[in-house]
Amino acid sequence: MAQWYSSVKPTPMLKAELDIVIPTIRNLDFLEMWRPFFEKYHLIIVQDGDPSKDIKIPEGFDYELYNRDDINRILGPKASCISFKDSACRCFGYMVSKKKYIYTIDDDCFVAKDPSGKEINALEQHIKNLLSPSIPHFFNTLYDPFRDGADFVRGYPFSMREGATTAVSHGLWLNIPDYDAPTQLVKPLERNSRKFDLSLRYVDAVMTIPKGTLFPMCGMNLAFDRELIGPAMYFGLMGDGQPIGRYDDMWAGWCVKVICDHMGWGVKTGLPYIWHSKASNPFMNLKKEYNGIFWQEEAIPFFQSVTLPKECTSVQQCYLELANLVKEKLGKLDPYFIKLATGMVTWIEAWEELNSTEGTEAKAKAPKGKND
Amino acid sequence: MAQWYSSVKPTPMLKAELDIVIPTIRNLDFLEMWRPFFEKYHLIIVQDGDPSKDIKIPEGFDYELYNRDDINRILGPKASCISFKDSACRCFGYMVSKKKYIYTIDDDCFVAKDPSGKEINALEQHIKNLLSPSIPHFFNTLYDPFRDGADFVRGYPFSMREGATTAVSHGLWLNIPDYDAPTQLVKPLERNSRKFDLSLRYVDAVMTIPKGTLFPMCGMNLAFDRELIGPAMYFGLMGDGQPIGRYDDMWAGWCVKVICDHMGWGVKTGLPYIWHSKASNPFMNLKKEYNGIFWQEEAIPFFQSVTLPKECTSVQQCYLELANLVKEKLGKLDPYFIKLATGMVTWIEAWEELNSTEGTEAKAKAPKGKND
Repeated sequence: MAQWYSSVKPTPMLKAELDIVIPTIRNLDFLEMWRPFFEKYHLIIVQDGDPSKDIKIPEGFDYELYNRDDINRILGPKASCISFKDSACRCFGYMVSKKKYIYTIDDDCFVAKDPSGKEINALEQHIKNLLSPSIPHFFNTLYDPFRDGADFVRGYPFSMREGATTAVSHGLWLNIPDYDAPTQLVKPLERNSRKFDLSLRYVDAVMTIPKGTLFPMCGMNLAFDRELIGPAMYFGLMGDGQPIGRYDDMWAGWCVKVICDHMGWGVKTGLPYIWHSKASNPFMNLKKEYNGIFWQEEAIPFFQSVTLPKECTSVQQCYLELANLVKEKLGKLDPYFIKLATGMVTWIEAWEELNSTEGTEAKAKAPKGKND
Repeated sequence: MAQWYSSVKPTPMLKAELDIVIPTIRNLDFLEMWRPFFEKYHLIIVQDGDPSKDIKIPEGFDYELYNRDDINRILGPKASCISFKDSACRCFGYMVSKKKYIYTIDDDCFVAKDPSGKEINALEQHIKNLLSPSIPHFFNTLYDPFRDGADFVRGYPFSMREGATTAVSHGLWLNIPDYDAPTQLVKPLERNSRKFDLSLRYVDAVMTIPKGTLFPMCGMNLAFDRELIGPAMYFGLMGDGQPIGRYDDMWAGWCVKVICDHMGWGVKTGLPYIWHSKASNPFMNLKKEYNGIFWQEEAIPFFQSVTLPKECTSVQQCYLELANLVKEKLGKLDPYFIKLATGMVTWIEAWEELNSTEGTEAKAKAPKGKND
């Protein structure tokens, strides 16, 4: 049944087909711990904040680095769709990549250990998730039927066992969980890991988020098929000059899930875990999140009720249609959403520019890399 | 946030509010292993097959036992809705119970151990699942937010954090998984537990099955709020004289999920695990399942597309409406579904009879118990 996939083939590591995108404002010492897992991959580093600051990258990594000046130079006026002073800027990396797959990780995320004490190769698990099918149309009570030793249970329709193409693999976090500011504030125990060992809550499962169900997508430890869903992986307008922060990945998650549901693709969540080392300041976060917490109460029901027309057969078409609907429906909530809808359209224009034949020329002007 | 629930209160064991329903054709020696966990509860044993056979119940258990003669006597002509020679007969036990909660377990299910080697109190976990809210309207990537140490993640709408009332808790199985006959047949490795240790696949999670998503509900290790969803927990017409078997729990699961979605209640799956000791014969199973495997390809899309009218505000109303729709839509597939729809209506009539004031009289005629 499902076993042919997982038990026979070893996981292809896709070294020539996957870019690792890292948004940062600091030296990337965290890469030392990831060296055994990342060294053979190409990194796209998106430097946020002051472009004159020098970011140190450990020796031996193959990378290209873009700062704000580079983004402005490459995109011209369309650079307005890329956020500044917010990790939302990472989506510029998705746009300039030419690879089929993206893995994106935050610079405060380290290698986690599984309950047996073995270091987890997060990238390998993401690749497994992306290369094996999803099951968005019916729930399997033994979770991912494509894992070794698992399968479809009794009562799972045989016509659905082929599964759907997987577009997104959402990984989780040990140690500091991804909480919002109010939750961080009210859980003092969890700020002290000696009193409350969150690493105990390791759940050995990968599952498909069913069709029609939205989820809070975190950008800390995320992989996706860029060729499939890349144009919808826009992290919105956040941070500098915007009334909102820390909702970049949530925004992308709502859009991506609605479009994956429309296209018939799957979104997985669960393994792999990374070790998230430091919680951001809850007081600062509260300020950034305030509007998001408020607006999501209307934005989520909006996304839950969106139906894209059958005529939308590409992700770009879906995304532009979604931009229209955002403007029309959420524009009433706050003028910010009208600006965001414009940003969504600009993002698609910029994506098309960089990812068409002419786009490759634009890109030739690009980065500071290790071979500069 | 969600922690108030799980970390402050100990689990109430509901000894006066929960019945354990066991369908069987044999002596109930398996209860010895469950003694520390079940001894304080009342058991409802539904004896399938030859009513003249004596079933031995270990000393010290408080029980009532019904065989086919009892069922016929209590329900009269309405006994036609209770299956014979199939574990579907267990739903008679749900009907005669007067408790708020039901736990049902098969007699080839034993106490499992968690990865630390500790025996799992399945009933306690089911009670935890039933007494804490569900989250059918938005996915939480850290699974059940009401467990100790868990919570809602960033991006989870605050207005949805109260959750929904939980109606069903679906537990899982270590050792022999719940596979259909074709899957059993093609997985010879898993028939030999020395070659393939399925107990390794312990997933430490409970999750809500999202609204709008169907799942294959297994009746082996299942708990539910009888006062809420009992009238929809009908296990259909299976076994003797019917063209189908081994789809009793699946049928109930489809109906229950559609009705819980309509009523705004949650269905959970995951913990607790029991140890499932013996796989049934795959060749016999294939014969029983053949029509189910074939028919589910149409029945599942039917249930996926069902919308119950707003006027249906009780489970009984929902169930009768569903019976109409089954007759109308699935009746075309096979006359069996017309008979099944009639069975559904009879089931509700019998439920009402036994669960109204007069019903208590009917019940007074009832069982052989340890106090006979």
